[in-house]
Amino acid sequence: MKKYEDLSGFLNLKPNEQAEFDRIKRVIQNAHLRSGFKTYDAPLMFREDALLAKSGGDTNKQVYRLEKGDTKLAIRFDLTVPLALFIASNERELAFPLKVSQINKAYRGEKTQKGRLREFYQCDADVIARGKLPLEYDAECIALIDTIYSELFQGNAKFTIRVANRKLLSGFLESLGLGEDALQVRKIIDDVEKISPEDFQKKLAECGVNEEQFAQITNFIELKGSAQDVFAKLETLNITTEDFTTGLGELVAVMQNLELRQTQNVIVDLAIVRGLDYYTGTVFETNIVNYENYGSIMSGGRYDNLVANYSDEKFEGVGASIGLSRLYEVLVETELVEVKPSGVDLLFIPIDQNAYEFCVNESKKLQSEGKTTDILFSDRALSKKLEYASKSGAYQVAIIGENEINSGNYETKIVN
Amino acid sequence: MKKYEDLSGFLNLKPNEQAEFDRIKRVIQNAHLRSGFKTYDAPLMFREDALLAKSGGDTNKQVYRLEKGDTKLAIRFDLTVPLALFIASNERELAFPLKVSQINKAYRGEKTQKGRLREFYQCDADVIARGKLPLEYDAECIALIDTIYSELFQGNAKFTIRVANRKLLSGFLESLGLGEDALQVRKIIDDVEKISPEDFQKKLAECGVNEEQFAQITNFIELKGSAQDVFAKLETLNITTEDFTTGLGELVAVMQNLELRQTQNVIVDLAIVRGLDYYTGTVFETNIVNYENYGSIMSGGRYDNLVANYSDEKFEGVGASIGLSRLYEVLVETELVEVKPSGVDLLFIPIDQNAYEFCVNESKKLQSEGKTTDILFSDRALSKKLEYASKSGAYQVAIIGENEINSGNYETKIVN
Repeated sequence: MKKYEDLSGFLNLKPNEQAEFDRIKRVIQNAHLRSGFKTYDAPLMFREDALLAKSGGDTNKQVYRLEKGDTKLAIRFDLTVPLALFIASNERELAFPLKVSQINKAYRGEKTQKGRLREFYQCDADVIARGKLPLEYDAECIALIDTIYSELFQGNAKFTIRVANRKLLSGFLESLGLGEDALQVRKIIDDVEKISPEDFQKKLAECGVNEEQFAQITNFIELKGSAQDVFAKLETLNITTEDFTTGLGELVAVMQNLELRQTQNVIVDLAIVRGLDYYTGTVFETNIVNYENYGSIMSGGRYDNLVANYSDEKFEGVGASIGLSRLYEVLVETELVEVKPSGVDLLFIPIDQNAYEFCVNESKKLQSEGKTTDILFSDRALSKKLEYASKSGAYQVAIIGENEINSGNYETKIVN
Repeated sequence: MKKYEDLSGFLNLKPNEQAEFDRIKRVIQNAHLRSGFKTYDAPLMFREDALLAKSGGDTNKQVYRLEKGDTKLAIRFDLTVPLALFIASNERELAFPLKVSQINKAYRGEKTQKGRLREFYQCDADVIARGKLPLEYDAECIALIDTIYSELFQGNAKFTIRVANRKLLSGFLESLGLGEDALQVRKIIDDVEKISPEDFQKKLAECGVNEEQFAQITNFIELKGSAQDVFAKLETLNITTEDFTTGLGELVAVMQNLELRQTQNVIVDLAIVRGLDYYTGTVFETNIVNYENYGSIMSGGRYDNLVANYSDEKFEGVGASIGLSRLYEVLVETELVEVKPSGVDLLFIPIDQNAYEFCVNESKKLQSEGKTTDILFSDRALSKKLEYASKSGAYQVAIIGENEINSGNYETKIVN
């Protein structure tokens, strides 16, 4: 008999693990729905040309392609492109600003390595406007993440949401005379936490950054802390480029709205860039305090034009995305969540068939009160039945025989 | 600007539709979880040889295939094969009988036609034993469906769960001397509700069924109604083949357990065969009364050996499956569900930025009480804001200005 082997790069969780995974997913989903985000459940496949219209090299290499009839199809590699296509098809019928919750899997045929999955859950909350989108929605997305992680961690771990602004950085680089190399410089800054200080300086030098500029960049990206502190320091820089002024204005507005929302875990941190090209204003990342080496567990930002290829209208948006499959792995590795037995609240073990009716009725009653229950139908020995109770992860067990049926009372015992 | 067009065969629901879809899904999922079924979230892709090991012609033609690196991959076309592979890989760690809930999409590249989707949700509840599985679990799966549809329809529609047994039918055909042609005859009987009486007789005649045998088959498959009635009539047939006796015993046991569970919508109906080859005992289908032409909205049955290709152990199982995407379409077409506006319970409309803090605080308070709320950040005219309230599907709206902030009170108005 040949043994079946799982494909690597695909989570394939056992019941107890799945129960914990689902609990985390539910916290995220409930937070989305509570705040008026509406579920979008995208198709898995799209015409290849539509799905890849805006994509570059890595995505092109990683996307899963298939063919059926005459149509070249490809599988979604994120949840953003499907959303853009959906909005393009339905813009007349949708109410804007549109708040969308997507909790769904995406696929990339990457080389399997630690922290990279081929099938992975994304939990995306996006707000999209037809035209201008007020900056308050940037704050709302950040506050949503604050709520989600506060609920998930319940005080067992601290986290920091680090906020910056792309225009602020661009305006700053422009003030240094690095406007033309801004894209390349930005990518190096994005890597600052992943490479050594020497490499960081070397790579910047290769872009033509001189000693003086390097000192100023280092000074800039080290700015982090409360909005008040960072803004006070930024003022002393006396930078007057348009992007800098606009970016600072946006960041101030976002942080003011967050203050009004009394978020507890948000700081300004100008080292945050976010690799993706399409961000144009607010950007943010989240780290677990003391576990910064695991990287960001939530990130997002603002984009200017979501539906560029398929609509003449301009759709501004802001979104916050949690990579749930990766988050689950991190939380298990760091022991910030515990995979526990995950059986029913109460398992009935009828001694024999005469006890079935009693168990069925009691079970129904408890379920109507919101409990989860199960009945073990089996003619095996009681010891085997108790073994099942333990292995299935049931919290409590009740053994039902003649005495219990006659008296209508039964004892429950904790097994897990 | 080119217009993006949806692929046919994929549901791509708008927010109000999705909300109704999700409500139905939640009813099914909660019923599964309440009774101790545990979620399994299968990978989308498998090695082609593993996925298709047991499959025949149609499936082979319809399956979506892809290639990545050296591995030939295929996309799941149902949820049963992935579950079998999962059990094969993890049999030591799992507790049996294993109750599994799968609510997930499957894919078949069929020619698009009414009632056939390429991407479709299945909601499967399966109980799998290592070795013998008691017949009480067949009853449990049927009772689960009774619960789900009672909750979904809330008395607005009636439904009938029709139960039969494969062995009973085989034993009956054997008693007619049709044992060797049983498979072919069974397939024709399975189609009896889809073809004309003339075609039915003609096709059976082609299998060598004579007039006398035809009369007896017709008489047999017309047996339907309460267990007592059907069993009484079956006794008068005086059939003594082993399969008939075993099948009747199984059917009696299942119906007895269902009686004890006081299910209201279950009958015996010997016209039920179920097309799929792998069923070996109990089989069942469900129809909506007065909408029988839409076909079965839930079906399932018992199989003898789920994991045949990958384990030396024998795994008996029974399962009940709801084709949720198709069910949703049927319920919308028959107007048994209504797609309604699906916005938040209360939408706050701040008159200007001064009202933001008040709205944020009230919103937080209501959300902590379990309400869904939203705040419309916008500097457009009030008329535009109210238009949004209506289009977004909000149930109530509260306009917040200076008076409301000063008094701490506000009116709510129903808009949807």
